[in-house]
Amino acid sequence: MNIKDVTASVADEVEIFQQRYKQVLHAQNTLVDKVTRYVLKQQGKQIRPVLVLLSAKLCGGVTDASYRAAIMVELLHSATLIHDDVVDGAEMRRGIPSINALWKNKISVLIGDYLLSKGLLYSLDHKDYGFLHQVSEAVRRMSEGEILQIQKTRSLDISEEDYMSVISDKTASLLSSACAMGASSATSDEATIAALKSYGEYLGLAFQIRDDLLDYTGDSKKTGKQMGIDIKDKKITLPLIYALRHASEAEQKTIRSILKSSRKRAIKSAEVIAFVKGKGGLEYATEVAEGLAAKAVLSITPFPESTAKTALLQLMDFVMIRQH
Amino acid sequence: MNIKDVTASVADEVEIFQQRYKQVLHAQNTLVDKVTRYVLKQQGKQIRPVLVLLSAKLCGGVTDASYRAAIMVELLHSATLIHDDVVDGAEMRRGIPSINALWKNKISVLIGDYLLSKGLLYSLDHKDYGFLHQVSEAVRRMSEGEILQIQKTRSLDISEEDYMSVISDKTASLLSSACAMGASSATSDEATIAALKSYGEYLGLAFQIRDDLLDYTGDSKKTGKQMGIDIKDKKITLPLIYALRHASEAEQKTIRSILKSSRKRAIKSAEVIAFVKGKGGLEYATEVAEGLAAKAVLSITPFPESTAKTALLQLMDFVMIRQH
Repeated sequence: MNIKDVTASVADEVEIFQQRYKQVLHAQNTLVDKVTRYVLKQQGKQIRPVLVLLSAKLCGGVTDASYRAAIMVELLHSATLIHDDVVDGAEMRRGIPSINALWKNKISVLIGDYLLSKGLLYSLDHKDYGFLHQVSEAVRRMSEGEILQIQKTRSLDISEEDYMSVISDKTASLLSSACAMGASSATSDEATIAALKSYGEYLGLAFQIRDDLLDYTGDSKKTGKQMGIDIKDKKITLPLIYALRHASEAEQKTIRSILKSSRKRAIKSAEVIAFVKGKGGLEYATEVAEGLAAKAVLSITPFPESTAKTALLQLMDFVMIRQH
Repeated sequence: MNIKDVTASVADEVEIFQQRYKQVLHAQNTLVDKVTRYVLKQQGKQIRPVLVLLSAKLCGGVTDASYRAAIMVELLHSATLIHDDVVDGAEMRRGIPSINALWKNKISVLIGDYLLSKGLLYSLDHKDYGFLHQVSEAVRRMSEGEILQIQKTRSLDISEEDYMSVISDKTASLLSSACAMGASSATSDEATIAALKSYGEYLGLAFQIRDDLLDYTGDSKKTGKQMGIDIKDKKITLPLIYALRHASEAEQKTIRSILKSSRKRAIKSAEVIAFVKGKGGLEYATEVAEGLAAKAVLSITPFPESTAKTALLQLMDFVMIRQH
């Protein structure tokens, strides 16, 4: 299965979205226009606009408001990615140099702000206040979630409950907003919108747990990230949380001291990975992700069969089997 | 004259604003709350909320909407300052360590995003769509203005017209928005709102030209910035633009090559400063600023005398005489 199978059922709508998105991005200033055209070149699977469009299709059909929601979500997502790359000092983004690598930090931050303001003005011009609220709430949750993660990571003390709260805020919030916005662009039925919001939430949670698992199991050639890098960053994710919970006090102490020490990073990662595997942390995290995927599927089970429903189910499958 | 004279006429209102602002900033997360309390400690003259409140008072009286506008403007301004300090790698802000110096870049960017989303949600919750539009437009102009400045600076080719456009976007836009928002929180008369918007625009332009002049004339102990630092950064402002326009081709060539070379920075600044002084660049920029200050005064001349009017006139004076 390929991600293209998922988008095939809304291929025409994605095409229309892309044309409109390009128009919205167009800027008078030549440098702004150059950078935003580069942003388009850099774009990935555009999973968020696809979610908006599929959700709309499932709930009655893609409308003009669906395209506006897709544009708003993608503008916001692009802005946050550009800011993320600045903060992380990332050199590459999806196989080509990052904006900050090419235009330095200052321009990158400004372009992020520009895209964000464009998104706000676009929604305000169309009186899409509901969308604005959804997206602002997602930004608040994304920033709070990341801060909570850093805070908990520093103290090396994060419970499974904390972890679930962090990934709900930092990852699931924008995906569930995208689904809810798509649904509300097609229907005003609250229960239907809530069902899609749930689907997006469970999809996001499962996605993040799978992503965190790839730090332990992934092929770095495929994931594009070095294995164990999150462990080196002292990022404590579900497999490790489970393993620590099922370890003796002595084992916990050893692992915590390995995580705290900043030397011998390669050895450190290998030791932590072996510990997590030994305690069954990978199996546990996989089970949790599978449980969430099942809930995502249940959220949209009541809908009659359609190409959009099939695509959303395939997307959930894709998240669960991806190796990178 | 002191900036306190300006705020004295709205001292009670500023007090109410500060209490409400503190409430809005309060966060559940302990780390977020700690950082936002530090943001409060770091705050400066709060000139933007003061402008909102004075404009409202001049146009009929401070209303609940005036406080909301003041809070929105200050949240946005704080967010942009935090992001600016990250980008510039600034260690200090108003005499105490910057947020990024204390909590690193990642937390700083996230706190900036958090404050921004708080501002958006706050305005959305109160259906302040007009304020949202004003502020989003200001963010767009601020980012575009800064980008245009960097773009023009790189090519060492910026006309007076370009310069005025840059400072209007990057500095005057938020000040004129603050005044217009304050006015529109007290009256719906379009001409009155436009008068305050003009006042804020001229105030902002004059302020930025004065600020750029301080790079040539300022006492670094008072300004807190090293003299000539903008020249070292190749930032070409009005005094230099004027001087270059009145120089021979040979002189232009010499100055441009000094600006391009990255070595001997101290000597470089001294040479450029002497060149600008010799060509009368400082006098010219001062005259332009004075002309803009006169226009700011004219914008509010038709209003009957009041403590708010006096304060706005004093603020314009303060901008013109400040030495730091």
